[in-house]
Amino acid sequence: MQEHEKFIKEAIRLAKENVPSGKGGPFGALVVRNGEIIGRGVNHVIANNDPTAHAEVMAIRDACKNIGHYQLQNCIIYSSCEPCPMCLGAIYWTRPKMLVFAAENTDAAKAGFDDSYIYKQINLSFDQRDLPTVNIKPDSFFLPFQTWIDWEKKQPY
Amino acid sequence: MQEHEKFIKEAIRLAKENVPSGKGGPFGALVVRNGEIIGRGVNHVIANNDPTAHAEVMAIRDACKNIGHYQLQNCIIYSSCEPCPMCLGAIYWTRPKMLVFAAENTDAAKAGFDDSYIYKQINLSFDQRDLPTVNIKPDSFFLPFQTWIDWEKKQPY
Repeated sequence: MQEHEKFIKEAIRLAKENVPSGKGGPFGALVVRNGEIIGRGVNHVIANNDPTAHAEVMAIRDACKNIGHYQLQNCIIYSSCEPCPMCLGAIYWTRPKMLVFAAENTDAAKAGFDDSYIYKQINLSFDQRDLPTVNIKPDSFFLPFQTWIDWEKKQPY
Repeated sequence: MQEHEKFIKEAIRLAKENVPSGKGGPFGALVVRNGEIIGRGVNHVIANNDPTAHAEVMAIRDACKNIGHYQLQNCIIYSSCEPCPMCLGAIYWTRPKMLVFAAENTDAAKAGFDDSYIYKQINLSFDQRDLPTVNIKPDSFFLPFQTWIDWEKKQPY
């Protein structure tokens, strides 16, 4: 628990430092493997004009680049704040062994960051969501998958 | 509807073409504004060692880079397949006016791509998820948010 506290404090420190940089919001994250930090991220949405550049996504990209793999097995992800649905989805894709976070979504909401709307939307079927969503299936809709199924050199991921 | 079909077929074409490239899975996406394609993306998870490099995320990043903004208001996102939770979260953050997709998640599952597990997990509270998740709140947990609240030059996003 002491090690968790050390790393979560570091994620919080990164989050705080990011504010006056003007690069994005007050969020920081780390990826740790065997007690060693292998990836760092802070929110860069504004600096990069990239709405996906949340701290957790940035830390995951950094760690994956550093280890040369797209999964983070046996890693722990530390985030200064409870992840939004996008980041939680990204975390699941990387298959870490644990997630540790500090501030809860309700704390973030006090500073104007409210993810609860997106959490509620994702939980609805697409025809119930506020985002108008249309499903169109031309004859070719399964071709990409059939090509994948038939392709002998594929690397399942 | 005819215009939707034209763009969704193009997203499917990108998805199919991506398979023999070996760069990633059979997924393609477009961002369209006023009938013009402003962003393209295909799955690059393997090529980039980036688990967040799904087609929709890549198309969003491309469009945002091209227009120099982190939101995609008045845009339509076309995807060859129903977005996973990470991509749907990313789509919500960009605030497009519509989402159009071709293959459904059940079609993707036939080719070995099953997002339903992550959808179910995201819908649970963190203490109910398979991913071990710990909430640790050191004294400093709210400092990043307080710094953001107090920072007069902030750009809300």
